Amino acid sequence: MSSDRCSPSTVSIALAERSYDILIGPQLLDDPATWQGLPRAAVALIVSNETVAPLYLERLRIRLLAHYGRVDAVVLPDGEQHKDWPTMNQIVDHLLGSASDRKTVLFALGGGVVGDMTGFAAAIYMRGVPFVQVPTTLLAQVDSSVGGKTAINHPLGKNMLGAFYQPARVIADLDTLDSLPSRELAAGLAEVIKYGPIADPDFLDWIEANLGALLARDKAALAYAVKRSCEIKAWVVGQDEREQGLRAILNFGHTFGHAIETGLGYGEWLHGEGVGCGMVLASDLSVRLGLMPPEFLARMRRLIAAAGLPVRAPRLGAARYLELMRVDKKSEGGEIRFVLIEGLGKAGMRGAPDSLVAEVLEANAA
Amino acid sequence: MSSDRCSPSTVSIALAERSYDILIGPQLLDDPATWQGLPRAAVALIVSNETVAPLYLERLRIRLLAHYGRVDAVVLPDGEQHKDWPTMNQIVDHLLGSASDRKTVLFALGGGVVGDMTGFAAAIYMRGVPFVQVPTTLLAQVDSSVGGKTAINHPLGKNMLGAFYQPARVIADLDTLDSLPSRELAAGLAEVIKYGPIADPDFLDWIEANLGALLARDKAALAYAVKRSCEIKAWVVGQDEREQGLRAILNFGHTFGHAIETGLGYGEWLHGEGVGCGMVLASDLSVRLGLMPPEFLARMRRLIAAAGLPVRAPRLGAARYLELMRVDKKSEGGEIRFVLIEGLGKAGMRGAPDSLVAEVLEANAA
Repeated sequence: MSSDRCSPSTVSIALAERSYDILIGPQLLDDPATWQGLPRAAVALIVSNETVAPLYLERLRIRLLAHYGRVDAVVLPDGEQHKDWPTMNQIVDHLLGSASDRKTVLFALGGGVVGDMTGFAAAIYMRGVPFVQVPTTLLAQVDSSVGGKTAINHPLGKNMLGAFYQPARVIADLDTLDSLPSRELAAGLAEVIKYGPIADPDFLDWIEANLGALLARDKAALAYAVKRSCEIKAWVVGQDEREQGLRAILNFGHTFGHAIETGLGYGEWLHGEGVGCGMVLASDLSVRLGLMPPEFLARMRRLIAAAGLPVRAPRLGAARYLELMRVDKKSEGGEIRFVLIEGLGKAGMRGAPDSLVAEVLEANAA
Repeated sequence: MSSDRCSPSTVSIALAERSYDILIGPQLLDDPATWQGLPRAAVALIVSNETVAPLYLERLRIRLLAHYGRVDAVVLPDGEQHKDWPTMNQIVDHLLGSASDRKTVLFALGGGVVGDMTGFAAAIYMRGVPFVQVPTTLLAQVDSSVGGKTAINHPLGKNMLGAFYQPARVIADLDTLDSLPSRELAAGLAEVIKYGPIADPDFLDWIEANLGALLARDKAALAYAVKRSCEIKAWVVGQDEREQGLRAILNFGHTFGHAIETGLGYGEWLHGEGVGCGMVLASDLSVRLGLMPPEFLARMRRLIAAAGLPVRAPRLGAARYLELMRVDKKSEGGEIRFVLIEGLGKAGMRGAPDSLVAEVLEANAA
């Protein structure tokens, strides 16, 4: 691995007037250059959670005070079970209570939950204020902070209320991954692994060869994983911002994964854990439909297990899984549509007989 | 008034791929042609309220059953005090409870409250499903159903959560105005009157000359008022969809009006009543700032009173008015920005000294 992979790099999301940069590198938080050229306003609001705020909030606030007259903060409870309306409303209440105007810039400092809620609050407060993603988890750096999907959960379905709303910038400081619990690092690797089978066989090879370095938090390996993931995501989102077609491939493993998350109760499994196990199930389904050889399933299961992710699905019962998956956003007219692998580096959307889905669940049950 | 003003007409909103038509005329609800060419889906959901549903819901459902396999309905309580998250959530709960997919088309059958909430639900359900406006009040036909502003209220401010989200079509059946209470007709006239001073002196003359016919619900007069209002709004929205500048002129009278609505408690005054009185206050402020001659204030007060709208502001106290107006979406850095008339047919955004605003409130107090 060459050392230049550790220097800061920029990936751009090309969406006409909604284009923006993803900055990736170490020591970005404390570098004044990171914060130049953002939307100007009288007030900035940092949104973080109870876990991340003690680590990074003051450092961010100091940087932002060079650009904004007032820098407020809202600290939310941590965890997927709080990605709901009442918690998001704490952001809104703060904004309204402090008479923040529609130029106010929001900064999401944390993982996917903080990013999704802050982005959605920014999308709907006064019909839209600017926001900046400052992801501090691997999952958020490689996936959720990029591409403008914002959402909250509903008791009946994950990410069911939200908006496509692009950030003004994404700032992925790799040093923040030092403080990440191992379980969260593994969860982030699920989304890194995802990009291989759907878009880039070489990247899948690279992940297998460098999994040890990634788990050991080798900064150069992480830098490359984040950069390559963002490049693939930028390429997909640039073609299909609002998921009319292609973008759905980024949901490989998510149909099963969301059902696990919702079925067990939000926060029981991490999102990345659901996606990891969901990719095993979706790979198995791809094999059973004759789209991929059995070796592919074995390969995916091996890699996902080696990353420290679950490969066995909780026993919710096939009927409950099917019920949960029918409210998935990709469903149409009651038919569940899965993202399946049709060749290494190529994904497509397909339906499958309920009986075959039940077989997959049974074969991979915990 | 020539009789052709009563035949159906179409006004188009030009917003590239978000363009759509406003159909204006009598007997549109029952005309099969009205419902041709809308987005296709397995399921349609009509959202209405307890007042409007008994009058028109079944007629709409019959028409839609020719195009959608299932046509559901959600009937909400009536009134601005219900334009809130819990009420809007009834729409979301129905959609999720019935496993409605992201092609589901929502139809807003009612006035501005139903339209704003249905539009916002459509904007955020699964990050966006199509919706159609079927306005049944004059206010909704001339203003709120057109242009894609959707929102709900927050206890601390009106329309504080929302989205710019355009409908697929607006269907303004003039016959539905027959069932409108007189108080609501007057409230709608406030938004009609608004278009004169901000954009079209000739239209202001026409309104004055035809106010009697409008109040008597002359169909040809109403047809022209709706059409001309929609033309002006289409012209403004086509240039500034997301209110970066010009579009704010459509809020003439709304800064004071929203403060009255929020200050008295939502539902106490109708929105159009707040706007009517707000236009008197904003006209007075325009005069006191030397932008318009005193005759303009007298003319506006006379017309607004003749329309049956309040011209005297409730006594909330100047301090409370100023506090409420500082959370207005047009405020910047704590400065209230008013839409003021700078010449007949020309509006601009300006600040004003608090003391002058207090004088205006005192001079026009109830």
